[in-house]
Amino acid sequence: MTVTKVVNSSAPPAPKNFIQAERDAAVFNPEVMNYFLEGSQERSQETKAMIQQMERDPILAARSSDYDMTKAEARENTIAKINRLSRYIESETFDEFERRMSLISVFDPQLHTRVGVHLGLFIGCIRGNGTFAQMNYWVLEKESAFIKNIYGCFAMTELAHGSNVAGLETTATYDEDNDQFIINTPHVGATKWWIGGAAHSATHSSVYARLIVKGKDYGVKTFVVPLRDSNHELMPGVTVGDIGSKMGREGIDNGWIQFSNVKIPRFFMLQKYAKVDSNGNVEQAALNQLSYSALLGGRVVMVKDAFRWSSRVITIATRYGVGRRQFQAAKAKESDPESQLLDYPLHQRRLIPILAMCYAFSNGANVLADYAKEANEILDSAVANDDKAGIDRGVALAKSLFVASGSLKSTCTWLTLNNIDQCRQACGGHGYSAYSGFGKAYNDFAVQCTWEGDNNILGMSVGKQLVKNIKSVLEGGEKPEGILEFLNNAPKYINNKDAILDSDALSDTSKLLQAIQVVLIRGSYQCLKALEANGEDWDYIGADLVTLSKLLAHFFLLKAFLDKIDSMSSPDEKVLVEILDKLAQLYSATIVLEAFSGFFLSYSVISADAMTTLTTGRIQELCSQIRPHVIPLTDAFQLSDMMINSSLGGYDGNFYEEYFKIVKDNNPAPGSFHAPYTASIKAMLQRPSYDDRTRQEFTDETAESLDPEEDD
Amino acid sequence: MTVTKVVNSSAPPAPKNFIQAERDAAVFNPEVMNYFLEGSQERSQETKAMIQQMERDPILAARSSDYDMTKAEARENTIAKINRLSRYIESETFDEFERRMSLISVFDPQLHTRVGVHLGLFIGCIRGNGTFAQMNYWVLEKESAFIKNIYGCFAMTELAHGSNVAGLETTATYDEDNDQFIINTPHVGATKWWIGGAAHSATHSSVYARLIVKGKDYGVKTFVVPLRDSNHELMPGVTVGDIGSKMGREGIDNGWIQFSNVKIPRFFMLQKYAKVDSNGNVEQAALNQLSYSALLGGRVVMVKDAFRWSSRVITIATRYGVGRRQFQAAKAKESDPESQLLDYPLHQRRLIPILAMCYAFSNGANVLADYAKEANEILDSAVANDDKAGIDRGVALAKSLFVASGSLKSTCTWLTLNNIDQCRQACGGHGYSAYSGFGKAYNDFAVQCTWEGDNNILGMSVGKQLVKNIKSVLEGGEKPEGILEFLNNAPKYINNKDAILDSDALSDTSKLLQAIQVVLIRGSYQCLKALEANGEDWDYIGADLVTLSKLLAHFFLLKAFLDKIDSMSSPDEKVLVEILDKLAQLYSATIVLEAFSGFFLSYSVISADAMTTLTTGRIQELCSQIRPHVIPLTDAFQLSDMMINSSLGGYDGNFYEEYFKIVKDNNPAPGSFHAPYTASIKAMLQRPSYDDRTRQEFTDETAESLDPEEDD
Repeated sequence: MTVTKVVNSSAPPAPKNFIQAERDAAVFNPEVMNYFLEGSQERSQETKAMIQQMERDPILAARSSDYDMTKAEARENTIAKINRLSRYIESETFDEFERRMSLISVFDPQLHTRVGVHLGLFIGCIRGNGTFAQMNYWVLEKESAFIKNIYGCFAMTELAHGSNVAGLETTATYDEDNDQFIINTPHVGATKWWIGGAAHSATHSSVYARLIVKGKDYGVKTFVVPLRDSNHELMPGVTVGDIGSKMGREGIDNGWIQFSNVKIPRFFMLQKYAKVDSNGNVEQAALNQLSYSALLGGRVVMVKDAFRWSSRVITIATRYGVGRRQFQAAKAKESDPESQLLDYPLHQRRLIPILAMCYAFSNGANVLADYAKEANEILDSAVANDDKAGIDRGVALAKSLFVASGSLKSTCTWLTLNNIDQCRQACGGHGYSAYSGFGKAYNDFAVQCTWEGDNNILGMSVGKQLVKNIKSVLEGGEKPEGILEFLNNAPKYINNKDAILDSDALSDTSKLLQAIQVVLIRGSYQCLKALEANGEDWDYIGADLVTLSKLLAHFFLLKAFLDKIDSMSSPDEKVLVEILDKLAQLYSATIVLEAFSGFFLSYSVISADAMTTLTTGRIQELCSQIRPHVIPLTDAFQLSDMMINSSLGGYDGNFYEEYFKIVKDNNPAPGSFHAPYTASIKAMLQRPSYDDRTRQEFTDETAESLDPEEDD
Repeated sequence: MTVTKVVNSSAPPAPKNFIQAERDAAVFNPEVMNYFLEGSQERSQETKAMIQQMERDPILAARSSDYDMTKAEARENTIAKINRLSRYIESETFDEFERRMSLISVFDPQLHTRVGVHLGLFIGCIRGNGTFAQMNYWVLEKESAFIKNIYGCFAMTELAHGSNVAGLETTATYDEDNDQFIINTPHVGATKWWIGGAAHSATHSSVYARLIVKGKDYGVKTFVVPLRDSNHELMPGVTVGDIGSKMGREGIDNGWIQFSNVKIPRFFMLQKYAKVDSNGNVEQAALNQLSYSALLGGRVVMVKDAFRWSSRVITIATRYGVGRRQFQAAKAKESDPESQLLDYPLHQRRLIPILAMCYAFSNGANVLADYAKEANEILDSAVANDDKAGIDRGVALAKSLFVASGSLKSTCTWLTLNNIDQCRQACGGHGYSAYSGFGKAYNDFAVQCTWEGDNNILGMSVGKQLVKNIKSVLEGGEKPEGILEFLNNAPKYINNKDAILDSDALSDTSKLLQAIQVVLIRGSYQCLKALEANGEDWDYIGADLVTLSKLLAHFFLLKAFLDKIDSMSSPDEKVLVEILDKLAQLYSATIVLEAFSGFFLSYSVISADAMTTLTTGRIQELCSQIRPHVIPLTDAFQLSDMMINSSLGGYDGNFYEEYFKIVKDNNPAPGSFHAPYTASIKAMLQRPSYDDRTRQEFTDETAESLDPEEDD
């Protein structure tokens, strides 16, 4: 038999060569750039060591088979990881463990949440609302701080109430005769819902319930309610169920809880801010407003999460975009090979602004975290010393932190969710494979826009603060501080009608920051006027309040970014500064100017021509200037292959071979390539004819014999 | 024992009362409004009967347990459904079955795809590229049209090539000695990838491969290659594997295929446009350009899909938004109960424009489908009659259809993907439950932005046509027809500098359509200038081309919407027209004016003040005017509870009870509420102390006995 020679139409693709070439041509050291991202050289090195420790850990490390786990497997696997983590926590400082958790949030968000609910929310609630003795008892004496003896959940939300905590309907009624509280779920709407850990794990819950004493409703307070005994059997009166499948984070055993007259001792009520004595006398502290602040810390952390998740997906999409070739660019010669995706201007336009955003997020998250730390320290020390002036100062800082963290949490999580999907789409069909990592990332991340403060509700609260404060400034009232300090310039900018941004604005950063301030001021003032014209109906201006909040977040991020760049003055940092400056310009041109272009134009801080020059014209120029540095800029995130966990985003860029191997490893072929349902397919394809199956009843012959009209 | 009386803090929530009240107050009949959406009364009634048939079908009907299926279960379940569908197809016309498929795409997209690959792509490829004899043989004689004997897959994309079909690397080499083709995969990059049905189901594939004859490469042609014999065993030389987990559509057995010198007879090459005779002479027809058009029909269908998916998710979010109460609106009195979510202006602002979009999509999809039908009929008849002039006319229509369908497919799928997530977010935490339906909808739909023409690549091609045609108009060349006809007005509008939209524009629809034309003309002209200034580098203007394509889609949709409203002149339609007119205005204000505000302002068709009036001012007014009608407007989609398949979106609005029931039914409680991993949790929580576990080696006592420094 003669076999015709097979023509190999071309050599196999070798994406890793492209990636290596760009890495070789790097003009800066990605490890040094990482100091900028993590905040300092020391932080950078500690983070790296911690990643290495976890990727070597046989239980904690993420792997491609994670993408094939069923819900049941994911939940069991997560418990094994929690067990493993409980050993780390025994020998680490709080700061170290917090950093470990921040890293885990990228490669195993469900582990992060499941531990975070216990340590951050359950214990956080006791710490925030309990007395020192209560905290000492449950957290230290019972060792729950080390995930020992007690596993807690956070029973706040109910089926019919989420954001409106004050409207919760579970009751905690004081029973004076027995000196106890009776916790009860009055109807299905008050069923505790979404409670992470309740379905299978938690032994205790911190329950938000209405305090009822002698028939009087004192509003929502917090209580520690045991759910399961040490044999892990449910306590009497406690009903718990599994909430079942979710969009993502299937490894978390979210549950529902119904309390049917469950009795707890009086001293299980957390009583830092409110107390009931054995005679049923209720005492409430003025500082009650601080008792819901357990969620604030989470919002600060989520800005860092936004950085880490965005940096992970942009690394995958960038490596794929550099290694993948498709079509020929218009500029190419006919004899050239196909062009790299990331050499197409549109592909640059889709991805490089996300890369710039990561650099803005990272530094902004560091600044916000420092700010939160300072605010908490001042407040804690003032409360400890009963220092009235210190408490006032701390509360003022906490309010500013509320504005900053609310605006950044909502804005950065929305953008990150979008970044994940944009990066997926930029990887074409392969982005839809579970092993690329995007699908799970999207599904796991999506909830961040909703939990710990729904983004729209946060955005409205932030916008409201802008409007209230501008009103105060215009009326000569209290002067805003912190993140809203710029509103004091309102009188100067409101009526100034000159366009102040010209087509050089990107390189004159102080001008740009000033323009954003002016837009924020005019936008807030516009809202104030609309509010007054509509009978103080805050809801009427809701959409505008959210937009203001988004722009405020960018003002914060851009200012922090530019301040940081300004502070980098050593000669070895010069090369970094040049590139960071381009990133800041691109961030300004796309995420700020272009995204809010209608706003900037309407508020007359820029002419239409200057806007066109700064966006259409300048964006592509900046993208192509940054293009040669994209591989080093993503290498600078220092994410190991374990953290990336993607068939398309490995460091060496050998993604075709790697992807094929992952697919084969995780889907081993049965000998005959028969599926479990092959017999059904064969039966369908080889089914008898329609006439045979219908016993010839529908045939023309039958018609002839049965239909009298056919008799003729 | 005394038990204190439990205070029920309030009555259980009753969302269905709100929904029923709004339904009772409807000013129009939703069934009649459905005629507008489906195109006619007849269509509407046929569609309804078909839905009823499927929701009663014990195998085809969707149910809440679908959200708990593993990948393996989903695949097996889908085959059972295909088997069931194969019986319907035996007794239905093509039009009927097509409508059935369009409905299935909403409640079981994976079934839709798995059948669509066989009927639409495999058979479509044979019909498009094969001779009459070839089509007759495989499709009719072998009965594959009835999903019998043969199950086909569509082996086009490869691991290293997706969008660039002409660059595929699989080879089909003619072996003259044996009068056969040898199909071969030269390297891993040429592995056929993403092939739906290949992993477990398909017996045959339509393979895109480079035709090599006598060492000469004739480019990519199509071939029928059997994969499995009638015993469902793989043919020699065929290697097939499972691609594994995906972001969504897990019920589809996407696979990869490698051919290792697989032999097929010469007459398995599809030879309508290219032929090889037994001497190795190759004959190619001029009409070859039509051979890739198999995907066009899919793009048309996806616009209807966009309507159906968007209407499903907006129905869920609207019913939830009407039934759910949270907080008190600013306008409420203190004694009022909590307000309905959809009474908040921001919530209206988030959802009602999506509702308006659905009405625009639906009618636009109908117009596009009619247009496609006409184009295909003209072309088919001309080809059949070898009518040269008719073919030219048909090709011109096909080109216009390419522009219209490319622009609409990309724009409407992008918006729909966004609509799904917006509606999820509008349902707060409950939107994250799998049973709400949003997560699966997002994951299943996401691929529509990528497959059958990547949205960005389609958008660029469409934009390119705008620029090429405006050039032709300005140079006095060929005059554009069909969807691009308006470009003939270019000379008049390019330099006209007057702002032409005033703050009344929304009620003067001809003015608005004209303004969009002007923006499209000026935008295209701007691109043309940028192109010429950059050495004809089309890639340089890629991002702008995509924006133009999006705006073109809205021009098509809005024009079709307004034309349809104008045609509704009977007196009973007056009440519908009033509401449809508001929807068209809201669509214009949000999806067109606001979304492209920077564009409209930059191209000077509107002043900043008029823009502010039309968006910020007018949008909220329109939303509140439409607000009372949202329940009837979503009822008008006539989606049954089976099609909705959501814990939050049932017709009667009793969603708390329903959601709780679904959660309990699908996650039955084990007697003791122990999880399979309870033993691990207990072992972790009750672990010995750190010192005991580390054999006292790390204690102070050990330090004292081992450390010489401690000797003192």
